[in-house]
Amino acid sequence: MTKGELMRAEIAEQPGVLAGIVTRRAEIADVAARVVRRRPRFALFAARGSSDHAALYAKYLTEVLLHLPAGSASPSTTTLYGATPDLTDVLYVTVSQSGGSPDLVEATRAARARGAVTVAVTNTPDSALATVAEFAVDIGAGQERAVAATKTYTASLLALYLLVDAIRGGTGACVAGIGDLAARALAEPVDDAVARLRFVRRMVTTGRGYSSATAAEAALKLAETSYLSARAFSGADLLHGPVAAVDPDTAVLALVSEGRGGAAMGEVLDVVSGRGADVVAVGSAAVTAPARLRIDVPRTAEEVAPILEVLPVQRLALGLALARGADPDQPRGLSKVTRTR
Amino acid sequence: MTKGELMRAEIAEQPGVLAGIVTRRAEIADVAARVVRRRPRFALFAARGSSDHAALYAKYLTEVLLHLPAGSASPSTTTLYGATPDLTDVLYVTVSQSGGSPDLVEATRAARARGAVTVAVTNTPDSALATVAEFAVDIGAGQERAVAATKTYTASLLALYLLVDAIRGGTGACVAGIGDLAARALAEPVDDAVARLRFVRRMVTTGRGYSSATAAEAALKLAETSYLSARAFSGADLLHGPVAAVDPDTAVLALVSEGRGGAAMGEVLDVVSGRGADVVAVGSAAVTAPARLRIDVPRTAEEVAPILEVLPVQRLALGLALARGADPDQPRGLSKVTRTR
Repeated sequence: MTKGELMRAEIAEQPGVLAGIVTRRAEIADVAARVVRRRPRFALFAARGSSDHAALYAKYLTEVLLHLPAGSASPSTTTLYGATPDLTDVLYVTVSQSGGSPDLVEATRAARARGAVTVAVTNTPDSALATVAEFAVDIGAGQERAVAATKTYTASLLALYLLVDAIRGGTGACVAGIGDLAARALAEPVDDAVARLRFVRRMVTTGRGYSSATAAEAALKLAETSYLSARAFSGADLLHGPVAAVDPDTAVLALVSEGRGGAAMGEVLDVVSGRGADVVAVGSAAVTAPARLRIDVPRTAEEVAPILEVLPVQRLALGLALARGADPDQPRGLSKVTRTR
Repeated sequence: MTKGELMRAEIAEQPGVLAGIVTRRAEIADVAARVVRRRPRFALFAARGSSDHAALYAKYLTEVLLHLPAGSASPSTTTLYGATPDLTDVLYVTVSQSGGSPDLVEATRAARARGAVTVAVTNTPDSALATVAEFAVDIGAGQERAVAATKTYTASLLALYLLVDAIRGGTGACVAGIGDLAARALAEPVDDAVARLRFVRRMVTTGRGYSSATAAEAALKLAETSYLSARAFSGADLLHGPVAAVDPDTAVLALVSEGRGGAAMGEVLDVVSGRGADVVAVGSAAVTAPARLRIDVPRTAEEVAPILEVLPVQRLALGLALARGADPDQPRGLSKVTRTR
């Protein structure tokens, strides 16, 4: 098998996977209707790794579209310290492609016992997680064999979007054509960016608003597959200190989609450019001046842009890993399911 | 002025600053009593940079000691997207040493208008933030002149601990002698660690439970002052993927304090050591085998260990910056107050 073959194949499956989820919207809307009946007042998200970035995206959706306060749960407060919060009125959403991580299973079981409305978003409908949660959303991405999550990441984003959208009474209109748009996003060339970043040692990924999730996922994907020292910051946090480490030896991967988050990135691009960083911009916003290279992404409503803008980033991670001689299908010392306790 | 003089002086002030806060416990307990009367059911923390790490610590305290679900607020959902969540029953704590960051001021004002019990934890009692919040806790650390936050970080941790402790009816017993313990923690030599890490290019900081906050602060401090590419992970998240980037070129700074978080770090130390990383352990737990170097910290109750364990880390950041020829008092392109909108 050629290096990176699994990751390449799974990246390419995404238009079909996403289109398939849209056809199963009614199942997700059914879970949403049951959640609505329970009238949650707060939302908590529990997840690790790529799924945690999907959860971060869902946190923004929940705050902006549902007007519910939301936070990230720390499973270890339950699993290490035995915390027993009162979770009445809390919507507790666990995101895990495998559904097999023991600490998430335990934290979800405990949350349900303490009154939360629990929803498991997983790619494994018969997993322990899907079983302990009151409701389960199957992202239906098919088995993921590459260690680096790609199709399960975008499938989780889309399932979470459809869940939140249905909770607010939406019909999924913003993602009706998401499969075709994903195919277009995947057709965008990334070769120039791969060539340009091949020798980079230090990379910063950044985005604001919804796209901070993409920045986090981009850094993880690059670190996992290319062993790059990539760090993610929301644009606001970056300017608050870590920008000191941005210099001409640094590449900045900036997510700039049409909308308020992308617009707020203008200042960030100016600052990192002014510090001599090599800036690659990914997204639908027509950023020009400070970005040395831009990878375009089809335009959508801002709240669904993260589903598309990560696609060229996955291809960039794959391309960089291969250019640097690594095999992204077999990252050193990683296994697919993490058994954190 | 010698390089790093400000940072060194402010690091040294911490025993006095911490002891001073303990003597003003009654003021904090008064705010706590008013908060208790409002019977919050959920807590949200808003902050950026080092203060966000103090907020992460407080989130763990809130979940474990108060049994309240807690999350990090994303100010940008309000300031960029105009989200209007119902915050009745929500305790909304904003942490900012300057109290001047416009997005935090705006998010706090909006949270109060939507029903939250708002508390500002700041070093600037007459700041805009302290004014818009319903209650204010003055950390009283004195003016901080170095750009890298040191004394305001530990002062924020202690003030947040005393606030949470008073909300649960505690008397601050665990931190009664914190000033003296801080002086002992600051007396621990860090020269060997500085010499050992002087040429490092890639660094990972990690901790579990309460100490994940210290890991995050350590990475930020090293990036700000030494321009090191340091990344922080909770021990659980590290094993979930990013460990692929840990190799013999990597130094791992592990926080291992006595208690459940430190005990859970055993597996993490074994894995990163097995991958050839150079491991420096900081904390009160008697970790031996996989750590090549250990910096001891006086033993305390686990929930207050983050106040002490960061002290040698600050000295390490200072020492490394000087060894590498940088001036930590004047990081490139940083100013003390960030004006994020």
